[in-house]
Amino acid sequence: MASFYCLTFLTDYGLDDGFVAACHGVSSQIAPNARIIDITHLVPPGDIRRGAAVLAQTVPYFPPAVHVAVVDPGVGTARRAIAVAAGGSVFVGPDNGLLSWAVAAAGGAAAAVSLTNKALWLDAVTPTFHGRDIFMPVAAHFAAGTTLAEAGEEVDPAGLVALPRPVSRVRDGAADAEVLTVDRFGNAQLSLTGQDAARSGLAPGAVAWLEFGGQRVTVPFRMTFGDVAPGELVGYTDSAGFVSIAVNGGDAARRLALRPGTSVTLTVTELFSGIILRPSVPFPASA
Amino acid sequence: MASFYCLTFLTDYGLDDGFVAACHGVSSQIAPNARIIDITHLVPPGDIRRGAAVLAQTVPYFPPAVHVAVVDPGVGTARRAIAVAAGGSVFVGPDNGLLSWAVAAAGGAAAAVSLTNKALWLDAVTPTFHGRDIFMPVAAHFAAGTTLAEAGEEVDPAGLVALPRPVSRVRDGAADAEVLTVDRFGNAQLSLTGQDAARSGLAPGAVAWLEFGGQRVTVPFRMTFGDVAPGELVGYTDSAGFVSIAVNGGDAARRLALRPGTSVTLTVTELFSGIILRPSVPFPASA
Amino acid sequence: MASFYCLTFLTDYGLDDGFVAACHGVSSQIAPNARIIDITHLVPPGDIRRGAAVLAQTVPYFPPAVHVAVVDPGVGTARRAIAVAAGGSVFVGPDNGLLSWAVAAAGGAAAAVSLTNKALWLDAVTPTFHGRDIFMPVAAHFAAGTTLAEAGEEVDPAGLVALPRPVSRVRDGAADAEVLTVDRFGNAQLSLTGQDAARSGLAPGAVAWLEFGGQRVTVPFRMTFGDVAPGELVGYTDSAGFVSIAVNGGDAARRLALRPGTSVTLTVTELFSGIILRPSVPFPASA
Repeated sequence: MASFYCLTFLTDYGLDDGFVAACHGVSSQIAPNARIIDITHLVPPGDIRRGAAVLAQTVPYFPPAVHVAVVDPGVGTARRAIAVAAGGSVFVGPDNGLLSWAVAAAGGAAAAVSLTNKALWLDAVTPTFHGRDIFMPVAAHFAAGTTLAEAGEEVDPAGLVALPRPVSRVRDGAADAEVLTVDRFGNAQLSLTGQDAARSGLAPGAVAWLEFGGQRVTVPFRMTFGDVAPGELVGYTDSAGFVSIAVNGGDAARRLALRPGTSVTLTVTELFSGIILRPSVPFPASA
Repeated sequence: MASFYCLTFLTDYGLDDGFVAACHGVSSQIAPNARIIDITHLVPPGDIRRGAAVLAQTVPYFPPAVHVAVVDPGVGTARRAIAVAAGGSVFVGPDNGLLSWAVAAAGGAAAAVSLTNKALWLDAVTPTFHGRDIFMPVAAHFAAGTTLAEAGEEVDPAGLVALPRPVSRVRDGAADAEVLTVDRFGNAQLSLTGQDAARSGLAPGAVAWLEFGGQRVTVPFRMTFGDVAPGELVGYTDSAGFVSIAVNGGDAARRLALRPGTSVTLTVTELFSGIILRPSVPFPASA
Repeated sequence: MASFYCLTFLTDYGLDDGFVAACHGVSSQIAPNARIIDITHLVPPGDIRRGAAVLAQTVPYFPPAVHVAVVDPGVGTARRAIAVAAGGSVFVGPDNGLLSWAVAAAGGAAAAVSLTNKALWLDAVTPTFHGRDIFMPVAAHFAAGTTLAEAGEEVDPAGLVALPRPVSRVRDGAADAEVLTVDRFGNAQLSLTGQDAARSGLAPGAVAWLEFGGQRVTVPFRMTFGDVAPGELVGYTDSAGFVSIAVNGGDAARRLALRPGTSVTLTVTELFSGIILRPSVPFPASA
């Protein structure tokens, strides 16, 4: 394995403590030339699904890299520590599904190992901080040129823990989905790709009912927030390719009480085929 | 244009999602040797004025660099994407005023372009994430040596959107201003420079009335927080050269309910010319 | 002094403002090849003790480095600015005890200076931002090869301000301690090392009463969170070697209202010597 220039890092460690920095320090001793780019450390404690979603939507924008992710409520128990080769990158973390969506997005696992070679760990391993003591030192060794095979016993990628894929169902003129994530702006990303939504008529220019938990609101579909008036709801295909519900200049998740896991149904009510959209940039069909 | 070593990054993207990291990833593919220094990503969503203030007060401490700033509630609409050369640096962001105070602080715009050269963008541009798809890739190309002229059509700097400058009015023995920003410590920075304040007698050793929203409190002016007792109000010239109102060991903005935009009047009530100040370091008149 | 590759940075500046970035900018001008690793900037404002604890528990994982720490409620007053050589590293910050636990953890001060050489400061020093104007520029000069002696007058390390060490008292079958820090997960770290606790019988397999503020709860001692059922309390030796109280999948500090400084007593009630623990990794006695 060639060495990697770039090492990404995602955890639920937060930014108040020294946990993230201790891992950076460990890496800087093993692979001083690797650059660590933090993805986020504010995954809600133990929220594997949220970590998996952020990782999968972010790593496609990186060059081949070592991606370390640790959301690990089972730290110190029997769950495996793994490294997975996929799409030219190596993913390192607990075998609890956290890596699974990103590995799939990178084209699927080409190979996987259980991290059993203790020579690559810190000398003293504590039962509650495998990020510092196992995952980061092994990842830094990968960044410095250690091969996957040197890190432990090969395992069958088919046997790795995988999170269930988010569910969506597309019908003619309607779609069922769930809220996948909510971002800082309160935009609620649905488990429905823009491409699938378009097949059911949910495309820019359409107006839909959004139903959830006994409520029903009307949502125009547009290209971007600014295509509706400030304070108004809007549906659009977001930067990761999923349908999202937003409020222009506001917080849709808070207004509608949408949370990850909330089930929603979208139903096309009208199609304004003649509407003049005003994208300032070309919007490729694949985005 | 010579290549730049340093690329700074300021947004309202927050730290919970992968948005900032995706931009870092994009940059690392285009300009792997550029170092990205994050200024802040916690600008309140859409708060252009706050972003402008932080940017203007921070960039003077950097070497010539590419400064990318994205607080962009109009993303995907007709607002222009621009790059502005000023003071040896290049500022990249939306043409909504966000860059204007920093450009002015750097000596004013020497040249500007509208970012219309799509060859420098990502292949797929989404309508809601121009930070990742346009601003950062273009900025990384600048960092790698691309010239301003190569990025798009030249535009007249005089036609760029500029935020109105914060208002202050200095009289003999008094000054009117507004709260410009509130920092993490709850220090309320006023739109009044220490130099202007000194002209009206508001200098270390003075005592002033601070009036706002029907309230009036007494504020001694000193060199630093520790020059008053714990828990007491103090006025001082802050590290950016503006008059700020603080509480030693406390949160002045919370105590007084001061917020950005709050109008205040300061009136000198007493001058203790004989007071013994105790700065531990020289305090140049220009600071 | 050889130059350092790595410069760490810990403050109470927060992440909302440009304060941290201004310091990075200053460093990048003086020592462009030094890599700054942020430890945390979310120390509660002015909380020297919390800053000292995080610093002391993090720096052992770094290579020899320049460690800059600024939690400095007395900025601009008579408190000294210092640099301390310890364990091959240099610690830079205010002489208010902030550095003392980390210096002790690094083996104690080999030498110390008062930072009086103004040639290493920024030209203009403000009374309220010595992080940007004094500490970081001096630290960057150290990173670039300046010697300790060049930075100012030598001082006796014995005269530096030291924080009192956290108190714990171990008896047969019991221990008194206080809450030292609470981390992001709500784990309450006690001022009691795992080694000391084990001497009184508080070791994995034991069950103890935890008494504090008139309350009493039962806490089983185990190796890691996952060794108890979700939602249950657990005592364990944490990744820094101290006894911590956690809730598996929950927030112990919030549930029990434990805060830094809370006095606690642990009393062994039962010893389950035959219990089958299930550590997935070796746990050295020294960890």
